[in-house]
Amino acid sequence: MEENSYSKAGVNIDKGREAVDKIKNMAKKFGVLEIGKFSGFYPLTEGLNSPVLVSSADGVGTKLKIAFMTDKHNSVGKDLVNHCVNDILVYGAKPLFFLDYIATGVLEPDKISEIVSGLLEGCVDNNFILLGGETAEMPGFYSDNEYDIAGFIVGLVEKKNIIDGKNIKEGDLLIGLQSSGLHTNGYSLARHIVFEQLKMNVNDQLPGTEDTIGDALLKTHRSYLKPVSKLLEKKIIKGMVHITGGGFYDNIPRILPEGYEVKINRNWPVPEIFSFLVKKGNISQKESFRVFNMGIGMILFIDRENLSETESILNNLNENFYTIGQVKKSNGKDKVIIS
Amino acid sequence: MEENSYSKAGVNIDKGREAVDKIKNMAKKFGVLEIGKFSGFYPLTEGLNSPVLVSSADGVGTKLKIAFMTDKHNSVGKDLVNHCVNDILVYGAKPLFFLDYIATGVLEPDKISEIVSGLLEGCVDNNFILLGGETAEMPGFYSDNEYDIAGFIVGLVEKKNIIDGKNIKEGDLLIGLQSSGLHTNGYSLARHIVFEQLKMNVNDQLPGTEDTIGDALLKTHRSYLKPVSKLLEKKIIKGMVHITGGGFYDNIPRILPEGYEVKINRNWPVPEIFSFLVKKGNISQKESFRVFNMGIGMILFIDRENLSETESILNNLNENFYTIGQVKKSNGKDKVIIS
Repeated sequence: MEENSYSKAGVNIDKGREAVDKIKNMAKKFGVLEIGKFSGFYPLTEGLNSPVLVSSADGVGTKLKIAFMTDKHNSVGKDLVNHCVNDILVYGAKPLFFLDYIATGVLEPDKISEIVSGLLEGCVDNNFILLGGETAEMPGFYSDNEYDIAGFIVGLVEKKNIIDGKNIKEGDLLIGLQSSGLHTNGYSLARHIVFEQLKMNVNDQLPGTEDTIGDALLKTHRSYLKPVSKLLEKKIIKGMVHITGGGFYDNIPRILPEGYEVKINRNWPVPEIFSFLVKKGNISQKESFRVFNMGIGMILFIDRENLSETESILNNLNENFYTIGQVKKSNGKDKVIIS
Repeated sequence: MEENSYSKAGVNIDKGREAVDKIKNMAKKFGVLEIGKFSGFYPLTEGLNSPVLVSSADGVGTKLKIAFMTDKHNSVGKDLVNHCVNDILVYGAKPLFFLDYIATGVLEPDKISEIVSGLLEGCVDNNFILLGGETAEMPGFYSDNEYDIAGFIVGLVEKKNIIDGKNIKEGDLLIGLQSSGLHTNGYSLARHIVFEQLKMNVNDQLPGTEDTIGDALLKTHRSYLKPVSKLLEKKIIKGMVHITGGGFYDNIPRILPEGYEVKINRNWPVPEIFSFLVKKGNISQKESFRVFNMGIGMILFIDRENLSETESILNNLNENFYTIGQVKKSNGKDKVIIS
């Protein structure tokens, strides 16, 4: 009988090492040094009073299929990082470090290093570090040329600075910060409409824009760290909602105190990609706001009296934002009313 | 045209909520309360001098296929937790919290809750908490009834207590702690041998044991937190190696200082599952120690003069362990010599 080895069973440890080496070299370039250990180390700075670690795990979902179709792998890592950053930012936490998990059927070092370059760029953009990660070759698990990625973030906030929405009251305003596209949600439905129903190709143009449909769907999930940090310094924000899976309807109730509801007016310019999907896909308004962010990636709750200061700060940062609604005493069981 | 919705595109948000509810109920039972937020919170205890966070990400690899074949999903979560615990433990860090990522093609709430029950049990056994996680439904991504899971752990160690192997010197002894089975490595090769070459069924008996081959392959990855913690209290451990992917050859050099090598004597009783795979699969000795843990899941480096204290502590804990080798001045490029 022929001698057996791991590489004959479909796992190539040498290719794994090649991928790790490529990642190490990139990581050095970005100033991140400790990769290849069992774990990553993060020394906590001193002088903290009541530090609270805030942590979140996420994936990119089936947006990855768009990366596969367009063969562009350097942006999904950034999607993942930014998604995670926003998920802890809503509580007022700033990111400390990030770890990734990449799983693939056949390890292609160049593709892995393209993915990791996106992760590293995301970390650098948000001014924190990629502390480690795991790249798993799982033959017979993922389709050839496909992979999944997950990310884990750890951030820090002083206990007294946690933003939890508990001071939200009637009359408070909802400020919507513009999204860059679908971010990382609604891709199963979007792909169904675009590629199955409309039978479009990724290189077809998105009508009314200069983008291909592939590029429009691949636009990077934004990080809101910069504008939100400025507003956090001024203690203006009472609550924040990251519009992710479940859309407006599932996410807003996560921070809204008992006894209140929000009334949202659809008064902002909905980006073309959403109008296109809603129209061509024959999606009801309710479903569209449950599945997509509809052009608003982050909602900030502020006191009405801080509106002009908020506007001035956001305008100085060239941020696109809209006053999209307000908080009311609750009349019924629906916490989110969109008209 | 028929109206579109997310569930028609294969994503069922209600089923997602059902899974989250099941997880919440379980989590309450285990005393873990904060699930369903964007992130998890972990307040750091005060009175630390130079705390260092130690963090690691991991998966279970293709051991999951054994869970699919046997339709047993309550142990892989524990594998994942324990693997992560060991990966930070080797640096002397104790776990604070854990987050999981579960991705599946079609969300089956009962199966997800079975997976999460394993995660929760693992966290409780190791005396820390499941702080949060992400469950992603990704239609057209994973085969029906299949899933992938990844875990992320954060632990803490005082800077002066970090175990980094730098004091390892000639004559130090290697203590091997028994593994419970393959842990989470070598499954692609094991499956190739057992199910493709030998065409065995998961319910066939593993010769020389009372286990089915399915149960033998599914044995839970051990956590070494308990015995190692006792030895850490006594400041006995100079270095630790978790035998994971890459086996003895890739993992031992991770902590061995320059100028040294280890000589390992194969003097411990190799569990039946490994002998069976090596013999039936016609695997060379070198390859077997590169792919499998061969019955040793964790190696501790200690000073020779602490041997009897180590033995007495481990015996008191009913730990199975073996003095498997020693540290030598390096003679060549091979850092790990197994005879």
